[in-house]
Amino acid sequence: MTITHPTSILQSIDNSQYPNSMAQNFSWLHRGVVEIFPQPTDSDSESESLEKRLATTDRPLRIKLGIDPTGADIHLGHSIPVRKLRAFQDAGHTAVLIIGDFTARIGDPTGKSDVRRQLTQQEVEANAQTYLDQVRPILDFDTPGRLEVRYNSEWLSKLDLGKTLELLSTMTVGQMLAKEGFAERYKRENPIFLHEFLYPLMQGFDSVAVEADVELGGTDQKFNIAVGRDLQRHFGQKPQFGLLLPLLLGTDGLQKMSKSLGNYVGLREHPSQKYQKLQGIPDHLLKDYFELLTDLPLDKLPENPRDRQKLLAQEIVRQYHGQSAVDNIEAGDLPEFSLSKVEFPAKLSYILNASGLCKSSGEGKRKIQEGGVRLDGDRITDVDTAFQDKSELYGRVLQLGKNKFVRLVP
Amino acid sequence: MTITHPTSILQSIDNSQYPNSMAQNFSWLHRGVVEIFPQPTDSDSESESLEKRLATTDRPLRIKLGIDPTGADIHLGHSIPVRKLRAFQDAGHTAVLIIGDFTARIGDPTGKSDVRRQLTQQEVEANAQTYLDQVRPILDFDTPGRLEVRYNSEWLSKLDLGKTLELLSTMTVGQMLAKEGFAERYKRENPIFLHEFLYPLMQGFDSVAVEADVELGGTDQKFNIAVGRDLQRHFGQKPQFGLLLPLLLGTDGLQKMSKSLGNYVGLREHPSQKYQKLQGIPDHLLKDYFELLTDLPLDKLPENPRDRQKLLAQEIVRQYHGQSAVDNIEAGDLPEFSLSKVEFPAKLSYILNASGLCKSSGEGKRKIQEGGVRLDGDRITDVDTAFQDKSELYGRVLQLGKNKFVRLVP
Repeated sequence: MTITHPTSILQSIDNSQYPNSMAQNFSWLHRGVVEIFPQPTDSDSESESLEKRLATTDRPLRIKLGIDPTGADIHLGHSIPVRKLRAFQDAGHTAVLIIGDFTARIGDPTGKSDVRRQLTQQEVEANAQTYLDQVRPILDFDTPGRLEVRYNSEWLSKLDLGKTLELLSTMTVGQMLAKEGFAERYKRENPIFLHEFLYPLMQGFDSVAVEADVELGGTDQKFNIAVGRDLQRHFGQKPQFGLLLPLLLGTDGLQKMSKSLGNYVGLREHPSQKYQKLQGIPDHLLKDYFELLTDLPLDKLPENPRDRQKLLAQEIVRQYHGQSAVDNIEAGDLPEFSLSKVEFPAKLSYILNASGLCKSSGEGKRKIQEGGVRLDGDRITDVDTAFQDKSELYGRVLQLGKNKFVRLVP
Repeated sequence: MTITHPTSILQSIDNSQYPNSMAQNFSWLHRGVVEIFPQPTDSDSESESLEKRLATTDRPLRIKLGIDPTGADIHLGHSIPVRKLRAFQDAGHTAVLIIGDFTARIGDPTGKSDVRRQLTQQEVEANAQTYLDQVRPILDFDTPGRLEVRYNSEWLSKLDLGKTLELLSTMTVGQMLAKEGFAERYKRENPIFLHEFLYPLMQGFDSVAVEADVELGGTDQKFNIAVGRDLQRHFGQKPQFGLLLPLLLGTDGLQKMSKSLGNYVGLREHPSQKYQKLQGIPDHLLKDYFELLTDLPLDKLPENPRDRQKLLAQEIVRQYHGQSAVDNIEAGDLPEFSLSKVEFPAKLSYILNASGLCKSSGEGKRKIQEGGVRLDGDRITDVDTAFQDKSELYGRVLQLGKNKFVRLVP
């Protein structure tokens, strides 16, 4: 028989180091945050700040982050809310990752969008697994009670028409058309299809289903998070707080980090590749990168810009690959292969052989087919992949399996 | 073994007098109709008129009429599309009556409307039964294959979120806001709740579910019937025709016939009451009433207005109650009870006794409680129902059970 002291009830249900009301320093909460809403108002005595909620809660709060499982590779821009999620985990709370498989499996019901094609359950699960592999270095996967991964088809596939009508009845057309994006499209007379109005409500209903206390998202998510608050109120729950994070500028310092613009640092990229890209970040971006992507104190950064760039590269590589990876890079770990030995145009299978990664072009082809070959972290699956000129490959990292890499040089 | 001659295949599957391509006179189709759509266009060689479809079909067409089971008593205005449905039945086609029980059982999801309160399955079924009892004199209930009664919860309660998104994706916000009713409300900034956009799509999906060839409705139903066409096309069906019928003016000749305005003739009213009301129809309404509520040739009506009124009263009473009812009325069938014998204010239970319908006030109360008492066809359920002055009751018909009536006179 266990006797539980009534004041230590939290420890009795959760052996993690839940810090309780001791954690009164909220610098971890505010770092890099654009907005937390709602803010308590003087006029409403019942309103409460997120800080007060965190300080007084008698249970771990549930912190929601929604994930779109349509893509595979993610980059440092995507890591920002995940890092904030980790900060909540470290403060003793529960990260609730929601895989938006329901929408991904439906695709675009108008059939007009190639981008939003319908994924099979298998594809969704593979993407979700890939996502989890990539955020594993960021999140606490191990402490019991700190991470919950949920697929939203669990509740959305059971939503019948009666419940859907109820969700829809909580909002007016005017409220929906006031939403950024819809407002401009309606004004420009670009068609808005009716099902698009359901997506914010579906995301909001996710908050109801997991009983979220806080939802994290980019600044473009404010409307959807507010819809979640309304739905939670409608279903008798305490509405969640919203915590909005900025979008990260890419390595070019000009546009939002994005795979299609090529200005990204992918979480799957070789440590050496990450190091190299981060060492070249324009000076005016460094403060944002340190604030959003590291926990280093911002008032103690090196004065010399080159030292700052180096520190950023070291710190981020360390996060994802450990200090030894940093040491190896700085000791010159990555073998180089000079493309001067190859006659172009050349097939990738031939380069795999020439570089010594494979024993023959035939083995190179097989490895490509098996999905074991990556270029700058991106999987290559077409055995006929070829390059017209060696300059296309300068500086890129060719990878075989998990552990074999060469950097391609002139 | 039965040998079926290939050209008589219809007769082999349906023993009803399906008239096939013989019924080439479509005066029955056009009588009293405001609009049939679509009309064939010269530019589209594939377009077909409803008349051509009727003349060439090799199977009975399916003629849809939706019924709202939230009310109980119906009036002559409601009978207009039902009469047209009968005309289709007589031409060999199948009437598909759709009881809109799904919406009735949900009620108003905003919870703001008292009018659209949620009905139980029992209430819906009782209302539907009452409806069917009232239209029984109009429709052909007996010929096999001529009538199908369906509850739309059969398919709507099974509609999952994926299918609902698909329905919504067939229309744009702009199309929906162009709908009469929505357009003005949006302009006036009166709130339109999102679920209201689903109702036309639900009605449209009813057409898909029953594979309607034609939908009947009032002129206010054009949009909804057109939505049904779009959805049928979306789901690979041939789109239905729409047939629009006018709204009937009430006995006052001023406003739409409506129970709340008191200018109606209820299908449940006593034949004598119907006769009396119809005999007083203003002359300028007579042509519409004859056209919409009878099959009499309009060019052979009596010249004298009083004769026309009488003919209308006779014809409609005959439709619902038979020629003998007309004869009885004209021979003075309805016993009268003079209210001069009653002291006012008076309870209805007392009047039931005084008039001889009940043997005591106590029995009167019991009969009211049991639901067996009607005044002008409306059931009275409050045992304490009382009247301040006898003039409130002049000319009204008090009914006990199915067969006992008195007309209350001064």
